[in-house]
Amino acid sequence: MYFEIVSQMKKQLEQLDRWLDAASAHAKSRSFDPDVFLTMRLAPDQFAFARQVQSACDAAKFAASRTSGQDAPSHPDNEKTVDELHTRIRATVTYLERFAATDFEGAGARVVALPRWEGKSMTATDYLLEHAQPNFFFHLAHAYAILRHGGVPLGKRDFLGALSFRAPA
Amino acid sequence: MYFEIVSQMKKQLEQLDRWLDAASAHAKSRSFDPDVFLTMRLAPDQFAFARQVQSACDAAKFAASRTSGQDAPSHPDNEKTVDELHTRIRATVTYLERFAATDFEGAGARVVALPRWEGKSMTATDYLLEHAQPNFFFHLAHAYAILRHGGVPLGKRDFLGALSFRAPA
Repeated sequence: MYFEIVSQMKKQLEQLDRWLDAASAHAKSRSFDPDVFLTMRLAPDQFAFARQVQSACDAAKFAASRTSGQDAPSHPDNEKTVDELHTRIRATVTYLERFAATDFEGAGARVVALPRWEGKSMTATDYLLEHAQPNFFFHLAHAYAILRHGGVPLGKRDFLGALSFRAPA
Repeated sequence: MYFEIVSQMKKQLEQLDRWLDAASAHAKSRSFDPDVFLTMRLAPDQFAFARQVQSACDAAKFAASRTSGQDAPSHPDNEKTVDELHTRIRATVTYLERFAATDFEGAGARVVALPRWEGKSMTATDYLLEHAQPNFFFHLAHAYAILRHGGVPLGKRDFLGALSFRAPA
């Protein structure tokens, strides 16, 4: 399910991209600068909106690269506007679109080791399920919650996106 | 990975149980009633804390029952105190502990259909990845964010819980 999980992250990032559009439309309707959202946060010692978006993008990027054993492109986390966040999200989506199911063959036997883990490692499966996915959804949901707290009209359907329903038999 | 994904949800609910302890300790240190958290919310048209917890519990419960083709126990969503939320979470964890990997054999060919979907259905895999898991993490992260917004000292390690690190070779 590695490919399916990464594909779901890509879909969720495409939803996040749409929340930015909703935030910009809301700001326009109320005559304020949409870029003020980038520094909003829910607690003084939590990441602000911009870093929640950057962190969600990186969690998805590294979920794909580390479980498939590839190198990931670097993104410097220097976005200062909603437009620049759109660009970051779309760059991440474009990166994820390069992956196919065959890229994750053998992932079940792969090991992930980060420099800050000081020699310790996780299996790729544990990394994906215990680390990458919870981090991804943590930052994604916080980005959503900050916009909702800031008055942007969004609902659960905007969070989930379209579902793969099958027609009645 | 059905069993592994459900097991991760169980682990996250055990973390949620600990956040309630942190909320109660914080309330005690500041001499306020911890049950006030149950009606706190981040936006007037979002679920309050109690319902975020109930929804996270149900998303995990139904992820297990529907992808394994079993019936799930009913929970009436009538919790009014932190103690009752503890009981709800622990009941859900106990339910999830009954599952083994063998319960999910054949899940890849299973179909999920809910009454409100009016005859439409989803494959169990699509249901798990597009619906159950995003909903689970949505409500879990909102529960966490409400507590953080309310001053409860929690950090990312409390969100993730212990990671399955392997010792250096």
